[in-house]
Amino acid sequence: MPQHIDLKQPILDKNDRMAGELRQRFADAGVYVLDLLASPGSGKTSTILATIDALRDEFNIAVIEGDIASSVDAEKIKAQGTAAVQINTGGACHLESAMIRRAVDVLDLDRLDLIIIENVGNLVCPTDFDLGENAKAMILSVPEGHDKPLKYPGVFQVSDAIILNKADTMPVFDFDEEAFTSSVSQLNPGAPVFKISATKGDGVDAWASWLAERIREAQRQ
Amino acid sequence: MPQHIDLKQPILDKNDRMAGELRQRFADAGVYVLDLLASPGSGKTSTILATIDALRDEFNIAVIEGDIASSVDAEKIKAQGTAAVQINTGGACHLESAMIRRAVDVLDLDRLDLIIIENVGNLVCPTDFDLGENAKAMILSVPEGHDKPLKYPGVFQVSDAIILNKADTMPVFDFDEEAFTSSVSQLNPGAPVFKISATKGDGVDAWASWLAERIREAQRQ
Repeated sequence: MPQHIDLKQPILDKNDRMAGELRQRFADAGVYVLDLLASPGSGKTSTILATIDALRDEFNIAVIEGDIASSVDAEKIKAQGTAAVQINTGGACHLESAMIRRAVDVLDLDRLDLIIIENVGNLVCPTDFDLGENAKAMILSVPEGHDKPLKYPGVFQVSDAIILNKADTMPVFDFDEEAFTSSVSQLNPGAPVFKISATKGDGVDAWASWLAERIREAQRQ
Repeated sequence: MPQHIDLKQPILDKNDRMAGELRQRFADAGVYVLDLLASPGSGKTSTILATIDALRDEFNIAVIEGDIASSVDAEKIKAQGTAAVQINTGGACHLESAMIRRAVDVLDLDRLDLIIIENVGNLVCPTDFDLGENAKAMILSVPEGHDKPLKYPGVFQVSDAIILNKADTMPVFDFDEEAFTSSVSQLNPGAPVFKISATKGDGVDAWASWLAERIREAQRQ
């Protein structure tokens, strides 16, 4: 019988050790960290911009942008006056905690309340990687279709909150909201679903309130 | 100095050897194989259905469906009366040639002219994997945004043709078509861009004609 060599587990183990160190460092500095997952083009950057707008009066925020290439997202965040660090993975389909550690080294953690990590646009690979975050959230956008929980169950299961973005385009697409929320609640019964339109601002308040409450709770501890 | 262990290259080497064997087998049977890449929800299955509609009078077609989980896409293809084999990768973010070989074993290659492989919804991982195909094509859908060539250059570079789907929704989204085609032509000057609306049928003829010409050309050799 051929020997089975698991190539993935040692990488995950190493990642998780470093994620544990990061988590401690974030807790010591009183920083809440959100890892945001989604497909390409689902509106991660627009959602981050809208979230910052809703929370900037109460919290000091920085963003870590993960992309295969380019710095277009970090530029958009910086244009809004928020600190942003761009990570280019150079081909890798997800962020790892070693990349986050390098990004964190250029941030002043003691001055921050919230770091939002925009992961690489991908519903699969980022799911397995702990980045030392307090919570993972995911975005599905209406044009992607209501059947995505069936096809990408993992990301719906690991997310503490699910954002349904581009909700204003529902009339344009054949999106069955009931089928979607029913699939989600089977995969992840406790997770709230926030229906938003990031570019128009609709529904952002409920999502931002949920996040703000989690940040305050972490800071009380 | 720590030893550098390249975990990816041996996997790619093994994949490419098996892809070479598959390519020979496809050529011997006179089957043209298209590997279709795209994000989740960009309309791969709808595009395949529209392509089959346009080509079924001339060619015998089968579809290999790659998904993390579920068989919703294969069911849609079968409902249209076309042979479909579902591969569930069980978490893997791309198809590999070993998976294609198992799927091909249940198809009658001698009876087929065209196999369309619907890869896992992912703009990153499938890019590196040769599946023995004659051509790779990719879909970007308008709601994903015109900046995607900058952020996911690899998939635009390896694709022999680029399909811009959901073109009918351009008025709804802030999609800069000129910026998109300019980025694409810098990354991949020779690749045609087909603007379609798969569900409405607009533009599918030009794409299907391009594909049909490639199939006929391969069959003449």
